[in-house]
Amino acid sequence: MNYRMIGFVIGRILLTEAALLMLPMTAAALYGEPLRPFLAPALALLLTGAALGLRRPRQTALYARDGFAVVALAWLLMSAFGALPFVLSGDIPGYVDAFFETVSGFTTTGSTILTEVEHLTRSGLFWRSFTHWIGGMGVLVFVMAILPMTDGHGMHLMRAEVPGPTVGKLVSRMSDTAKILYGIYFVMTVMEIVLLLAGGMPLFDACIHAFGTAGTGGFSCRNLSVGAYESAYFDIVIGIFMLLFGVNFNLYYFLLIRRFRDVFRSEELRAYLLIVAAAVLAIAADIAHLYGNAFTSLRYAFFQVASIITTTGFGTADFNTWPTFSKAILVVLMFVGACAGSTGGGIKVSRILILVKSSAADMRKMLHPNAVTTVRLEGKPLPEKSIRGAHVYFSVYMLVFVISFLLLSLEGFDLVTTFTALAACINNIGPGLEVVGPMGNFAAFSPASKLLLSFNMLAGRLELFPMLLLFAPSIWKRRLVLRRSGEEQ
Amino acid sequence: MNYRMIGFVIGRILLTEAALLMLPMTAAALYGEPLRPFLAPALALLLTGAALGLRRPRQTALYARDGFAVVALAWLLMSAFGALPFVLSGDIPGYVDAFFETVSGFTTTGSTILTEVEHLTRSGLFWRSFTHWIGGMGVLVFVMAILPMTDGHGMHLMRAEVPGPTVGKLVSRMSDTAKILYGIYFVMTVMEIVLLLAGGMPLFDACIHAFGTAGTGGFSCRNLSVGAYESAYFDIVIGIFMLLFGVNFNLYYFLLIRRFRDVFRSEELRAYLLIVAAAVLAIAADIAHLYGNAFTSLRYAFFQVASIITTTGFGTADFNTWPTFSKAILVVLMFVGACAGSTGGGIKVSRILILVKSSAADMRKMLHPNAVTTVRLEGKPLPEKSIRGAHVYFSVYMLVFVISFLLLSLEGFDLVTTFTALAACINNIGPGLEVVGPMGNFAAFSPASKLLLSFNMLAGRLELFPMLLLFAPSIWKRRLVLRRSGEEQ
Repeated sequence: MNYRMIGFVIGRILLTEAALLMLPMTAAALYGEPLRPFLAPALALLLTGAALGLRRPRQTALYARDGFAVVALAWLLMSAFGALPFVLSGDIPGYVDAFFETVSGFTTTGSTILTEVEHLTRSGLFWRSFTHWIGGMGVLVFVMAILPMTDGHGMHLMRAEVPGPTVGKLVSRMSDTAKILYGIYFVMTVMEIVLLLAGGMPLFDACIHAFGTAGTGGFSCRNLSVGAYESAYFDIVIGIFMLLFGVNFNLYYFLLIRRFRDVFRSEELRAYLLIVAAAVLAIAADIAHLYGNAFTSLRYAFFQVASIITTTGFGTADFNTWPTFSKAILVVLMFVGACAGSTGGGIKVSRILILVKSSAADMRKMLHPNAVTTVRLEGKPLPEKSIRGAHVYFSVYMLVFVISFLLLSLEGFDLVTTFTALAACINNIGPGLEVVGPMGNFAAFSPASKLLLSFNMLAGRLELFPMLLLFAPSIWKRRLVLRRSGEEQ
Repeated sequence: MNYRMIGFVIGRILLTEAALLMLPMTAAALYGEPLRPFLAPALALLLTGAALGLRRPRQTALYARDGFAVVALAWLLMSAFGALPFVLSGDIPGYVDAFFETVSGFTTTGSTILTEVEHLTRSGLFWRSFTHWIGGMGVLVFVMAILPMTDGHGMHLMRAEVPGPTVGKLVSRMSDTAKILYGIYFVMTVMEIVLLLAGGMPLFDACIHAFGTAGTGGFSCRNLSVGAYESAYFDIVIGIFMLLFGVNFNLYYFLLIRRFRDVFRSEELRAYLLIVAAAVLAIAADIAHLYGNAFTSLRYAFFQVASIITTTGFGTADFNTWPTFSKAILVVLMFVGACAGSTGGGIKVSRILILVKSSAADMRKMLHPNAVTTVRLEGKPLPEKSIRGAHVYFSVYMLVFVISFLLLSLEGFDLVTTFTALAACINNIGPGLEVVGPMGNFAAFSPASKLLLSFNMLAGRLELFPMLLLFAPSIWKRRLVLRRSGEEQ
């Protein structure tokens, strides 16, 4: 392990967070709210970040395990510091609650412990939703975009932070790839803000909801979420943007460089849109009797499906009161999640495609042992390593889910609350069903459960392994690693 | 596909079922009940079986896909004929209900559509529980034990019917292996009957409960299941025998031939016992306040844990009223299931060991890319094929579960009922929670859902692939197979 370099990168990340705190501080200044809740944490971040990140180490090589350690520790520290403004402003007096809320923000989950958000400070609301925007594309990707670090080793960092079974470089330099991704992300966010303003939403609200959409987070500045505006226009704009931010960002790059065929041929995109369309139609039919007319049912079905499959978590209807079939579809979509390389969470459509296709190929082989079967995705044969990776991911995911489920059930909530609270957190969605339904929140959980759910949010956002490998003794025992495997440290 | 040979084997199986119907018919004669409900189906089986199975084809080779087809079709036909006695006697007037009950019997599930079993005919009750005993060890294994068929190709049949990721031959000839397994099975069943008689249980009840235990089925002749006897002795005897029938039968053979070390070294056995012990203690602590004293809590926790993990489904307590933590543990155990090569269902302990160990190895490899990692089970390195097999099994299992869950949710029961009804059927357990809890039953489901659940019971008992491959077009298109892959038919 290259501890110096790990410290250096984390230092740079903390310095970046200090800089990003200037935005909510500006909001505080504009709204005449106290600056101290942001100034004090920014100073703390500046000092810690400078201590760690001022001097670039001579040895800058980072290996896969260093990448995991950087990402896991950086996200934990960012959340630990990022929670301070809420405590200092009094918006969320308890530190564990504030930590849960901040983890929920950075991981773009959107689960909240707040029963009432409209009384929070404006700057607090801004910071709360801005964490979604930062966490959506990833803070390491951001750091790489603005501070080119080491060439050649950024890949391990990016792979540890960007969701999906495979990470492709768009261009040869990682820092350029990061810049392109953030550029697209920024432009799309601005487009959404403009469209929301055009519909008459106040600028502040438009920023909040655009941050929540872009990061597929779901924090709102209204207690009733997007439903508070009772506007079909906002529903449709936000619904479409949620789906857009759930698409692999590489496809937008292909659009930019006019490789249209790569976009239309994308199997993951087609599967994603097919699942959305099927779910919307099935739910609209199932809830038609509740809303009386086809347009309203379709509108609510579309918004909720887009919100859940992209793991955003905005709401315009209380699906807790929908029939079982609709609820079952939404619960399944919670696990499916969005496309790889998007800002969304969940298992990811492409991973599910790999699981289905490779399983089908193995079953064909049972019938025809001599037949040659190759699994293809996006027109290319899938390497055995990717198939194995998807299967192992799925197994580890279920294992983490089951263990967390047992621990969370100690709270004594009903099984549906327990199951969907966990599903909402590990898949970075936000609301679940029953106690944690769209009209409920996570306030009733004990501090221990809030920490458990925070762990699950981070595990889900960072695709399990960085968080799990923090528990591996060999990551902490430098000597032992050297002795055992004889690798470079 | 060797259609003649498939027909021949199925014919033999139907003849065997005709012969097995003589047992409940004897019971009918003893209790002065009409013989016709058994005589008519036995004659129908005799005629169909004879038409298919009288003349042995010249070409007796059976390949893997033939094995799948034989097993799937045989189990469907056995259930279709086996349901007739219930309809003819009037015990279960509706054919779909009778089919569900018979599939539940043969697959050793034990889910029932009956609200009241104590008014059934004695011969009907006997046949209902005897299907558990037949289905537990497998009807094909039985046929192989009594009618040596073809040498060399029995493996494919056995592999398709015996649960678990790998099937080992105990001795070189399959028919001898089958005889040994059935011998052990028979002796253990008799031992349980004797112990129950010693405790004062009537012979009829002792047979019924021994059949249900041996097959890990769970049908009882009492409405309150084993709880009706209110006897700690019966609880303990049946509890221990459930656990014993959940162990890989190969281990009993090793005991017989004095290979004690193989038994004590068995990783699966140790993991199985460890899970049982942990679950019993955790639940006993969680329910202590309900029962007042430690012995009673331990007794109920032990019985219910043994019943669920072995997928038997007998009950002595209504765990539907237990706290969430206990229910969550039981729901997880529903999926874990018993050991491979036992009569129990579920995913199987050894498959879970393979998933956990191979995932851990892959995670170690992320930290130390150059380290050599081999996955070992039962002291031997696991071949890559077994690891892949376990992962594919798990993925296909979850896929079948999710699709069935969505279809079943159309019934409009609450999510917990829907989820656990399906879990109880696909894992061959019996009771679930809420509507289908230990004091409930499956009567309220529509005929379509009963058929869906019947499919899931068969898919669970036959380890998915035989039932799924029935849907593969190439199994039905003889020409196409030949043309496509150029294999022997």
